[in-house]
Amino acid sequence: MSLFRILLGRTLANREQAERKIGALEGVPAMGLDGLGSSAYGPEAALTILMPLGAAGLTYIGPIMAVIIVLLAILYASYWQTIIAYPNNGGAYTVSKENLGVNASLLAAAALMVDYVLNVTVGISAGVGALVSALPSFHPYILPLCLGILLLIMMVNLRGTLDAGRLFALPTYLFVASFILLLAIGTYKALASGGHPQPVVAPPALPKATEAVTLWLLLRAFASGCTAMTGVEAVSNGVSAFKEPAVKYGHRTLTAIVVILGVLLAGIAYLANAYGVLAMDQDKEGYQSVLSQLAAAVVGRGAFYYTAIGSVLCVLALSANTSFVDFPRLCRLVAEDEFLPRPFAIVGRRLVFSVGILYLAVTAGLLLVVFGGITDRLIPLFAIGAFLTFTMSQAGMVAHWLRAVRAKRDASGRASTRLHLAINAVGASTTGIALLIIVAAKFTEGAWITVLVIPAVIMLLKSIKSYYSQVDSSLRDDRPISLGSVEPPTVLVATEGWNKLTDRALNFALRLSPDVTAVHLTALAGPDDDDEQAIRDRWAKHVEAPARAAGVNPPRLLFLRSDYRLMHEPLLKLIKELQSEFPAHPIALILPEFVKTSWWQFLLHTHRAYRLRSRLLRFGGSQLVIVEIPWYLEEPTIEEGIIEETATSPA
Amino acid sequence: MSLFRILLGRTLANREQAERKIGALEGVPAMGLDGLGSSAYGPEAALTILMPLGAAGLTYIGPIMAVIIVLLAILYASYWQTIIAYPNNGGAYTVSKENLGVNASLLAAAALMVDYVLNVTVGISAGVGALVSALPSFHPYILPLCLGILLLIMMVNLRGTLDAGRLFALPTYLFVASFILLLAIGTYKALASGGHPQPVVAPPALPKATEAVTLWLLLRAFASGCTAMTGVEAVSNGVSAFKEPAVKYGHRTLTAIVVILGVLLAGIAYLANAYGVLAMDQDKEGYQSVLSQLAAAVVGRGAFYYTAIGSVLCVLALSANTSFVDFPRLCRLVAEDEFLPRPFAIVGRRLVFSVGILYLAVTAGLLLVVFGGITDRLIPLFAIGAFLTFTMSQAGMVAHWLRAVRAKRDASGRASTRLHLAINAVGASTTGIALLIIVAAKFTEGAWITVLVIPAVIMLLKSIKSYYSQVDSSLRDDRPISLGSVEPPTVLVATEGWNKLTDRALNFALRLSPDVTAVHLTALAGPDDDDEQAIRDRWAKHVEAPARAAGVNPPRLLFLRSDYRLMHEPLLKLIKELQSEFPAHPIALILPEFVKTSWWQFLLHTHRAYRLRSRLLRFGGSQLVIVEIPWYLEEPTIEEGIIEETATSPA
Repeated sequence: MSLFRILLGRTLANREQAERKIGALEGVPAMGLDGLGSSAYGPEAALTILMPLGAAGLTYIGPIMAVIIVLLAILYASYWQTIIAYPNNGGAYTVSKENLGVNASLLAAAALMVDYVLNVTVGISAGVGALVSALPSFHPYILPLCLGILLLIMMVNLRGTLDAGRLFALPTYLFVASFILLLAIGTYKALASGGHPQPVVAPPALPKATEAVTLWLLLRAFASGCTAMTGVEAVSNGVSAFKEPAVKYGHRTLTAIVVILGVLLAGIAYLANAYGVLAMDQDKEGYQSVLSQLAAAVVGRGAFYYTAIGSVLCVLALSANTSFVDFPRLCRLVAEDEFLPRPFAIVGRRLVFSVGILYLAVTAGLLLVVFGGITDRLIPLFAIGAFLTFTMSQAGMVAHWLRAVRAKRDASGRASTRLHLAINAVGASTTGIALLIIVAAKFTEGAWITVLVIPAVIMLLKSIKSYYSQVDSSLRDDRPISLGSVEPPTVLVATEGWNKLTDRALNFALRLSPDVTAVHLTALAGPDDDDEQAIRDRWAKHVEAPARAAGVNPPRLLFLRSDYRLMHEPLLKLIKELQSEFPAHPIALILPEFVKTSWWQFLLHTHRAYRLRSRLLRFGGSQLVIVEIPWYLEEPTIEEGIIEETATSPA
Repeated sequence: MSLFRILLGRTLANREQAERKIGALEGVPAMGLDGLGSSAYGPEAALTILMPLGAAGLTYIGPIMAVIIVLLAILYASYWQTIIAYPNNGGAYTVSKENLGVNASLLAAAALMVDYVLNVTVGISAGVGALVSALPSFHPYILPLCLGILLLIMMVNLRGTLDAGRLFALPTYLFVASFILLLAIGTYKALASGGHPQPVVAPPALPKATEAVTLWLLLRAFASGCTAMTGVEAVSNGVSAFKEPAVKYGHRTLTAIVVILGVLLAGIAYLANAYGVLAMDQDKEGYQSVLSQLAAAVVGRGAFYYTAIGSVLCVLALSANTSFVDFPRLCRLVAEDEFLPRPFAIVGRRLVFSVGILYLAVTAGLLLVVFGGITDRLIPLFAIGAFLTFTMSQAGMVAHWLRAVRAKRDASGRASTRLHLAINAVGASTTGIALLIIVAAKFTEGAWITVLVIPAVIMLLKSIKSYYSQVDSSLRDDRPISLGSVEPPTVLVATEGWNKLTDRALNFALRLSPDVTAVHLTALAGPDDDDEQAIRDRWAKHVEAPARAAGVNPPRLLFLRSDYRLMHEPLLKLIKELQSEFPAHPIALILPEFVKTSWWQFLLHTHRAYRLRSRLLRFGGSQLVIVEIPWYLEEPTIEEGIIEETATSPA
């Protein structure tokens, strides 16, 4: 318990919520690692596709990255608007729900959920993969390393988004600072040398061209490079994490992420061309990532190089954090609409949605275990989820502005709304086209799995909703309460022996009803008989006589024999008889229960009362009510029990 | 559920007990495998100690075995008497308790419990060890094989002692038949050749003597050979497993086991000498057990040899069964005296003490895992437990007869009692001396562990007893019930929303008491507010108005805010206030509970009602009573729930 508290922190009170919100400074590490981390693999993915073109491939990376950066700018403008329009977690789910209907919103939710789970596994395994390629002696520990990082990120997020934002700030800003500096130095050297800088460590010679350029190859390179944009939607999905004014801090965070990402992508594309860096084959000995080649070419393999490359590893491994911030918030919204189990909507001890965090960690952990910590093959799946989300979100905003245009009466308002509309329309169509290209280019590489998984998730969400609808309609109650008889219930007191506890139970039973029957269960411990006559004699002397003396209707005593040593079996038979004799008359069964306060007491007592209670609740029917009377070895004091943290909670 | 039933069989009714008892035919496989299996390692253990004497060692095996067989005969006579005197599991525990007092009985119980656990691990690992030395390709699977056999024996015993006796009859009687035949053939050949038979396969040449004979070496050989007697006490500990007349079947089983064991020991000792077979070093290449050398010498390595040696493996591996029959029965007796947790005394679904069986399997399994399935080092510990038990049991019987002699008034009765006394006195002193020799000879080989473990077990047993005594004295009640006020309790109805279920709860509350307060908990899902006014309006219209119209005291409505999103926190505070305002007046808290019938419903609902119930029971104090009102999506029918086997149980 104590360790649990040290790891997760004390329970936070509702009133502390405002203090737990984040600003842009924590927002970038909390939500931006996915986006920033994409700069490490987006350009490399495009260059990998261009490899067969040899040196000629380098001339295309500039234009491809330019298209991607334009797309990024469009996304930036659209999400800027989304954050204003939906300041309470206006991610693709809410936008689609409000503007495109339930089915579209479920498509968005399913795409986002799949995307977030994959982001966790892909991010962590990419980080560990990079670490292992730098330090091959860690190779046997890929899976434990992945699971360890997953556990760390989970724990930090269970403490709260603020804690995650603060803890991960150092590697994030180290990464940003070192790569901006690296690109600045490289660009200066390139410009100073007229576009042909002398590399400090020469990158490997460019391979010979083995293919001629085709449109299809360029489209595939573009589709691969698009992975550089994943993570841009994160801020719009997590606006509720920001302190007030949330829109302002959301905008700042989005701006910081997109600007840094844009600069990194542009710089990498320019320098790759200037220094002649192409992707290398990952399966071959001596593989180096594009960023590693670039850094070595610009500054050589010194302390700066290792700091920069180390920070890339951290950012990749921690890019899963974006999912841990957004996934639980998304699930909360979906659960509030009853498409996910209710526990996803419960605010946990640290004011975050703990169930979502745990679910994400378990699912991602299982995927990591199944794939042994190497999830390269999941990368294409991951980009599809992201672009599907982009498109849904933009399309929803288009519908939003269309309605707004109709609602606006003045021409100037309409004109500004039309501008918004245009931005989102361009965003929707470009991301839609990109999505189609990605699906086509990656279909055989595994994208078909997404095409199966997303509909399956939607079906699951719908079946959850249909269950809740059934429950709601069975429980819904719009009429005044109908007060029938207020006659006391028939009361049964169940026991396997007679002591102070059963006396207490009988006393309480007599407070509830004049119609009390004590049920003594025999043969519970096995075939050997109890001594019925001794109990009857004692009952007459110790119960019936005092009851008569006190002018109370004396309770009856009934012996029930259990053929199978199960308390519930004869009791349920008795209850059934009573129910058929007095239909609609409630029966209250009193169960005396010894309260266990230590773990070892659970070993020392039989759990008959507990099992009896569950069976009776399960099969007893609506007429039966269970009354539990506790017995304590030591009477508890309420103070200690109210809340574990009472002592340390702020006044 | 279905698989569970196929593996363990249907629940047996109490009335089926008589049919589940065993006779001598099942008794030998059920309880005798430990004893019979000892013939495979007892003589070998003695011969191992005699190895340094070379050929001269063989001349001592005869006398040593003769002493052991005499000891066995004494034990036989003593246990024969014990079974008559204590026909209901009169093992060392009962005998010591009745005659030597509680401390002695706990010593016996601890020794037996340790002995039984060790017997399981040693037996199984000896069997697997023999298998692996015959088929070295199984070597990597020692631990899985051990655990698999453990699981098999556990499952069979959970089905019942009868099932175990029947299933293990084939290997048992195959072993007995093949070795009796083998020894007969060997003895015939030896006698026919004038004491110097020609071996079919010659045993390895006898080693040269490296030491001279000393008394200490002979005593150590005797101590090692004594392991041949373990398991003889089994029948006396499990008499209650036999059908009536239990004493007769117990005597038959004991006789069968002791006679077969005696014949095997005598035959092995004689033939080892005649064929010149000594033990071989187990750690050296080409090791063969004494039985394997003997069988090969007598009949050669044909089908008969492999059948016989195969049956030895089975008997060794299954000798754990003796523990599974006796350990749960011992634990039941100890638990009934409150020195072990109560669940050990509960008759399980197959009329055996399932908790003891499971506990034995788990403990033995852990030992096997810790020792990697190789438990040679535990053998000395094991013999100490057995001989301590023998001695305690005999000494108890001596005390028993001493009292009987005093009670007898006629001379002939006294004389026959004195004979009984003499038999047990000889038994007690010889087994006591053997125990001292074993402890001395094996102390440094691990026997010191037993000397630490047994007192630790006794302390544990005593602390369990002291807990139960505390509970009993707090619950004991020898006075008539004191009937105070029968005023109705204060009733609280806790809820986080209002629907048909809460209407039912309110209706029931009004049956219990005119003093009803509905408690609406707010801010449970997080810091966002509930709409109190809407609920107040609805309450006035839907509850207060109809109540007044029906002439019922309308229940009050109270809003409680949960600062930490925990239902129990504000409720416990309210209960504390009520308790200090009205001390000794009971409070009934009504909890409406949605009954879950499928596993997936556990995922779809929050478990607030469940957790609230446990916290309130834990901390609410004696004044608080919990009333659970069930709500079903589909009303259950009682038939299906009473007992899973209703349909198949015999009429």
